[in-house]
Amino acid sequence: MILCDIGNSNANFLDNNKYFSLNIKQFLDFKTEHKVFYINVNEQIKDHLKSLPYFIDLEPYFSFDTIYQGLGIDRISACYTISDGVVVDAGSAISVDIVSNSIHLGGFILPGISNFRKIFSFISPRLKCELNTQVSFDAFPQKTMDALSYGVFKGIYLLIKDVAKNKKIYFTGGDGKFLANFFELSIYDKLLIFRGMKKVLQENPQLITN
Amino acid sequence: MILCDIGNSNANFLDNNKYFSLNIKQFLDFKTEHKVFYINVNEQIKDHLKSLPYFIDLEPYFSFDTIYQGLGIDRISACYTISDGVVVDAGSAISVDIVSNSIHLGGFILPGISNFRKIFSFISPRLKCELNTQVSFDAFPQKTMDALSYGVFKGIYLLIKDVAKNKKIYFTGGDGKFLANFFELSIYDKLLIFRGMKKVLQENPQLITN
Repeated sequence: MILCDIGNSNANFLDNNKYFSLNIKQFLDFKTEHKVFYINVNEQIKDHLKSLPYFIDLEPYFSFDTIYQGLGIDRISACYTISDGVVVDAGSAISVDIVSNSIHLGGFILPGISNFRKIFSFISPRLKCELNTQVSFDAFPQKTMDALSYGVFKGIYLLIKDVAKNKKIYFTGGDGKFLANFFELSIYDKLLIFRGMKKVLQENPQLITN
Repeated sequence: MILCDIGNSNANFLDNNKYFSLNIKQFLDFKTEHKVFYINVNEQIKDHLKSLPYFIDLEPYFSFDTIYQGLGIDRISACYTISDGVVVDAGSAISVDIVSNSIHLGGFILPGISNFRKIFSFISPRLKCELNTQVSFDAFPQKTMDALSYGVFKGIYLLIKDVAKNKKIYFTGGDGKFLANFFELSIYDKLLIFRGMKKVLQENPQLITN
């Protein structure tokens, strides 16, 4: 059984317990004769996916309690195994979702860390630089690299801390491991989205046997 | 007497009390036979400025107490008239500087509001939308537009609030008026950078008479 989570930049796979990632161009050439259970937020490849044999969209099988309009299925899946906590998926964008008693209370979105860097380099050549992952949150920055890093990392930190209060925070996505370091009550789970997909399959065993 | 503050996108002028703005392309065609006192952070037009008669660079005349490496002269000028407070210049980037007893304690930088929107539209077509300037900071967002607006505006708010404590906050720049609304102890001063330049001229009257 293969699980596949398709975003705007990449398609991430879990083939039994083996994780791998393809960019969208590579994904378009991907062929298999095994069943692939997928979720997808990439509008541009929706038609392509429908044309693929063996590919089964899991989205209709999630029963998730939210009043959020148009919540991405990747965010739903990441929240799906959590009954209480904050879910942070830090990829090309950073989504932060609050779950309480298995109900989704809402969420917000920030640019991903690499996209912050990209936009700084567009604004001015003077702002084109690496970010300092060790920047102090307790001292005012004294040079450009720290000024940008403080703005990005402390901004993300304050926003998450403000909604998390004493809830546990579940991080996933490429920058999830790094951001989890800022918090005591945090867990990094690379496979969080796949766990939501697995839960749906447990709730719908007919999908596997059919 | 004409004052001119040149950034990466625009050159802003104060001709006596008349304010006007040229984009950089327009600025390159700008001619005058009056003295223009300028500050400039745009590396690409430094040589052009040196070739202009009547243009006098005010940067060497600022005496400003900071250990910040490479602090932009626009940020210095905005801080120059403040003895105590936080200075926020919200343009294509948002700079936040902390001044205490006429000493610059440091500062940080964020993307400007329009550049946040630009980066969201690059990340995904689903994230391409207007921001909601009325979004509540006290309720979790329930749709994409509010999720993005909350991330941007509350992120900016929390970062500024965290450094400002009970200091007065001086806003300038295109989005300064809007951001000032989030704070009680705030002032919006469109001409803040020009006030710093005027102070330098008062301290160096020979520049005007020569």
